[in-house]
Amino acid sequence: MRLLAPKGMRDFLPEEKKRRRKVLDIILDEYKKSGFLEIETSMIEDLDNLTKSNSGENTKLIYKILKRGNKFRPTDMSTEDDLADLGLRFDLTLPLSRYYANNKNDLPTVFRALQTGYVFRAERPGKGRFRAFMQCDVDIIGEASYTAEVELISTIYRTLSRIGLKGQVIKLNDRRLLKALIMSAGFSENDFISVAISLDKVDKIGVEGVVSELESKGYEKSSIDAVIEKLSELSKSGLKAAEALDKESYDNLNSIISVLSSVYTDLKLEFDPSLVRGMGYYTGTIFEVYHESSSGAIGGGGRYDNMIESLSGVSAPACGFSIGYERLLGIVEEMNIIDASENNIALFYSSTDDLSGVIKKADELRNDYDMVTIIPKKKKFGKQLSRLKAEGFDHFAEYAETLEIKES
Amino acid sequence: MRLLAPKGMRDFLPEEKKRRRKVLDIILDEYKKSGFLEIETSMIEDLDNLTKSNSGENTKLIYKILKRGNKFRPTDMSTEDDLADLGLRFDLTLPLSRYYANNKNDLPTVFRALQTGYVFRAERPGKGRFRAFMQCDVDIIGEASYTAEVELISTIYRTLSRIGLKGQVIKLNDRRLLKALIMSAGFSENDFISVAISLDKVDKIGVEGVVSELESKGYEKSSIDAVIEKLSELSKSGLKAAEALDKESYDNLNSIISVLSSVYTDLKLEFDPSLVRGMGYYTGTIFEVYHESSSGAIGGGGRYDNMIESLSGVSAPACGFSIGYERLLGIVEEMNIIDASENNIALFYSSTDDLSGVIKKADELRNDYDMVTIIPKKKKFGKQLSRLKAEGFDHFAEYAETLEIKES
Repeated sequence: MRLLAPKGMRDFLPEEKKRRRKVLDIILDEYKKSGFLEIETSMIEDLDNLTKSNSGENTKLIYKILKRGNKFRPTDMSTEDDLADLGLRFDLTLPLSRYYANNKNDLPTVFRALQTGYVFRAERPGKGRFRAFMQCDVDIIGEASYTAEVELISTIYRTLSRIGLKGQVIKLNDRRLLKALIMSAGFSENDFISVAISLDKVDKIGVEGVVSELESKGYEKSSIDAVIEKLSELSKSGLKAAEALDKESYDNLNSIISVLSSVYTDLKLEFDPSLVRGMGYYTGTIFEVYHESSSGAIGGGGRYDNMIESLSGVSAPACGFSIGYERLLGIVEEMNIIDASENNIALFYSSTDDLSGVIKKADELRNDYDMVTIIPKKKKFGKQLSRLKAEGFDHFAEYAETLEIKES
Repeated sequence: MRLLAPKGMRDFLPEEKKRRRKVLDIILDEYKKSGFLEIETSMIEDLDNLTKSNSGENTKLIYKILKRGNKFRPTDMSTEDDLADLGLRFDLTLPLSRYYANNKNDLPTVFRALQTGYVFRAERPGKGRFRAFMQCDVDIIGEASYTAEVELISTIYRTLSRIGLKGQVIKLNDRRLLKALIMSAGFSENDFISVAISLDKVDKIGVEGVVSELESKGYEKSSIDAVIEKLSELSKSGLKAAEALDKESYDNLNSIISVLSSVYTDLKLEFDPSLVRGMGYYTGTIFEVYHESSSGAIGGGGRYDNMIESLSGVSAPACGFSIGYERLLGIVEEMNIIDASENNIALFYSSTDDLSGVIKKADELRNDYDMVTIIPKKKKFGKQLSRLKAEGFDHFAEYAETLEIKES
């Protein structure tokens, strides 16, 4: 038997799992406090739903599940999709859209959905990149106004603050503004997504890299230079200058920023006209959260008013945010900001003790301690004790009529 | 897009998810109190690990994942295993064995493992039978004595009691005793598992069905009659009569029953010589928990001292128990024994109110309430209020300098 988990997959030791559980518990509690209802969707989806979802790169990374029984009929002409009928989900947004369309009548008019769970992508694994990873999503469906964005950012801010990340920065932009800017540089409406995707790579390949990628896509040099120039100008001059380009985006961003900055003085809200975010489905506000502890974004989201309708035929405005749980876990571990200490006790007994008496005492202790373990006392008691201390049992007692509780 | 989850898979509405979360939280908390350390294993396993695991029927129910990229080379001669290299786990015990063998040096000598998570089986779905379902396992690895069985049963008893199932019945048997009984009827040692599997079907097909199945397997009529007779006798005469058949089993069962019955007066412990449990890997004590609310067992487990070694080469005695979480959820729903009520409040505001003030008030309320939602007040306020009440918001307030909190 191969003892390691498959490539890109992980097992978690008790210490690591404790940290994962603790962070997840905080996220769930704070999301819930903010009015979000927890739901769950199937990890397995019909393959057609996944492949026909316009989810870009993600549709190339699907783990596909073989057909079973009589349906399994391979030939040397078979494609993956001939042989598979199911797939593992690659995000939580597509299942949420399906879920909402299916259950709309049983859900509140403005539906604040909270969903956490594993998603799967057959990517090249690397540092901090896994093939199975947790996502923690909040989405507001049925609210067209900017109050959805305000609620989502407020929720994220409070959640990350409670985890211990003070001094967060939220970067915001609007897809409509980005489109107006790109078109004002001479590109056509159809070029928008392609140009935006190249612009998004500036962090990785620099301005020159973006320029040469756009050139290789065959765009006019004058438009390319103009879009770079206009982005740079807008970055310098700030949000007010966006009003002339797209009034609606400006009003929206302005409202979001002014409400949130007056509530959370510790939160920095920055208009960033070069923010793109990869997914094709965004239609309005887009935003990401940053913290000095991490070079990349800790999470991000945006408005996707057309997605549910295009997938399911059910029309509904929507806005969502996803925490990068695995990245957050890395930060929590590095900064050691989660107190995972517990109030644990070990109850020692000897072979002459009455086991039922020991169990009774242990059960009594369970009213007051997070974890109670019973353990036969060994001759090398000192060694046994120091090992237990290392395992997190900060208290111990030896079995007796009246327990004498000591620190280990 | 197909709006339903795939056949045998499920999505959960907020109300149902709340119940699932609540029951899982109790299980996790009580397991942990009992000294079990939470771990997590990969949901995806190498296909070879799954297929070569001697896990009986379950290996026929594996969801297999297609090879990707260059490795995907179908021909009309391809088998499922040629085209797949990964599979979804069908239980938590196999991954635990792999995990333990891989991480032994980083784990306590006596390792109390707690694991919850989804497992997947491509079964025919039916009432209460799903293709993806949760398991909640506790296992003690490295403890050869019956204290492991005592701790496991104590943990299950307290967990189910806290969920609200009073008056549980634990049925116990020992695989060694069952083997001695079967051999004493004239069967050979090699016949043991096959005969035991037929005997296990008595609830479904009756004594006559068992007899004819054993006849069709080619066993001697005299042995078949003898084993039925001996089982019936032992059931009537009780545990004491087992001493002559297998002294070790008798001593073990006697110790387990006497310790537990003196601690938990509400718990019935019954020796049941006809208890078999399906899996081939059990080596000693086997047990199941019953409650009047359900005709079938709510969970079960036993000792599997050879399994980890046969899978991984690492020798370790082990004993485990798995709660039938989905069945338990059915009981909880039917009996309505989990109080899922919360302390929720809705904060109404009007379009003239300052949104940042509203958010501030909501955040204040979040110190005292489980869930706080903000909502624009509509003209038909009564209708809006009764809908919110139905959604579980038992309190409300209208935005003001000083909030006046009312019951809805």
